[in-house]
Amino acid sequence: MTALDAPRKPYDIDSLTDVALRVFAERGYDGASMDDVARAAGITKASIYHHVSGKEALLERGLGRALDALFAIIEEPEAREGRAIERLRHIVARVAETTLQLLPELTVLFRVHGASKSEREAVERRRAFDRHVTEIIAGAQRDGDVRRDLDPRLASRLIFGMSNSVVEWYRSGTLSRETIARAVVAIAFEGIAARRG
Amino acid sequence: MTALDAPRKPYDIDSLTDVALRVFAERGYDGASMDDVARAAGITKASIYHHVSGKEALLERGLGRALDALFAIIEEPEAREGRAIERLRHIVARVAETTLQLLPELTVLFRVHGASKSEREAVERRRAFDRHVTEIIAGAQRDGDVRRDLDPRLASRLIFGMSNSVVEWYRSGTLSRETIARAVVAIAFEGIAARRG
Repeated sequence: MTALDAPRKPYDIDSLTDVALRVFAERGYDGASMDDVARAAGITKASIYHHVSGKEALLERGLGRALDALFAIIEEPEAREGRAIERLRHIVARVAETTLQLLPELTVLFRVHGASKSEREAVERRRAFDRHVTEIIAGAQRDGDVRRDLDPRLASRLIFGMSNSVVEWYRSGTLSRETIARAVVAIAFEGIAARRG
Repeated sequence: MTALDAPRKPYDIDSLTDVALRVFAERGYDGASMDDVARAAGITKASIYHHVSGKEALLERGLGRALDALFAIIEEPEAREGRAIERLRHIVARVAETTLQLLPELTVLFRVHGASKSEREAVERRRAFDRHVTEIIAGAQRDGDVRRDLDPRLASRLIFGMSNSVVEWYRSGTLSRETIARAVVAIAFEGIAARRG
């Protein structure tokens, strides 16, 4: 059955955002048109404008989802209580899992460069998230749990650079999300080298 | 002085490729036009077409530079001789350094998704590079030098995901290239956790 002959629940703003994010993740936000979104949804462009003012509003909702999910992680008890290194480990694992669970949302977020108002706001929120994690890394260095030869901000950028990179190649059905998230944490904290002795 | 009043050496195909790559890295290849390249070069579009057939030819030259640089690394003696883990360490360090040295070239390469013939060929060459590194990681696992709980292909993707991510934020004048390349190697092989005892 195609979208044309399948009975389908009418779209609401959330399910339309789902479709738009998949299109943005695939073609890039700049490369995607509202015609592409309408085609992917199997409805007319006029029906989309019934729900939403335009492409940027769909992007804004998607970026909001991605950033709300990231900020929810740093509010989790395991991210707020205990030794800095354990809080950091929790955050890195949860960010990797969340990236794979909300793949289109995070793909779009990671590619945003601040071209519009929604994008600039998203970049600002991402920076606030990065600053929070950088402070935890600095705390873990003061505790003697993170090596002191690494700049905390650089370490944060490289760890999330590794974690974020999964959006470029992950397709469901190959390695499990758990395997990937576990590998991100393993490399970030212990590296790939076997421990001796 | 602007490009208009500065006496400037006439462009050749290499210096035009330099300009085009900076424009592609900044605006994205799809988002960049030959008008943008002409404006950045300070010459007319007609003068560009005197040197090159079009935008894709400029992309092809840029991708060629990036991939030639990556393949040159795996031909270096330190990448061909000795224990697998030491060859791997050399390759990871040199890829990180090269990414920072050829920033526009590698930025464009890392964003390519195979939309045109040049892009598909570039994706194929990148895959061949990844397979080569994956085999070295598997060899290092057989030597007992890399932990066996990591899938070699996944490890390769995550390490280069981390290394490649620098193109998203690096601007010259902040941290030195050496500091960044050293941090990539440190995290990839030993992780951020301080060693105890």
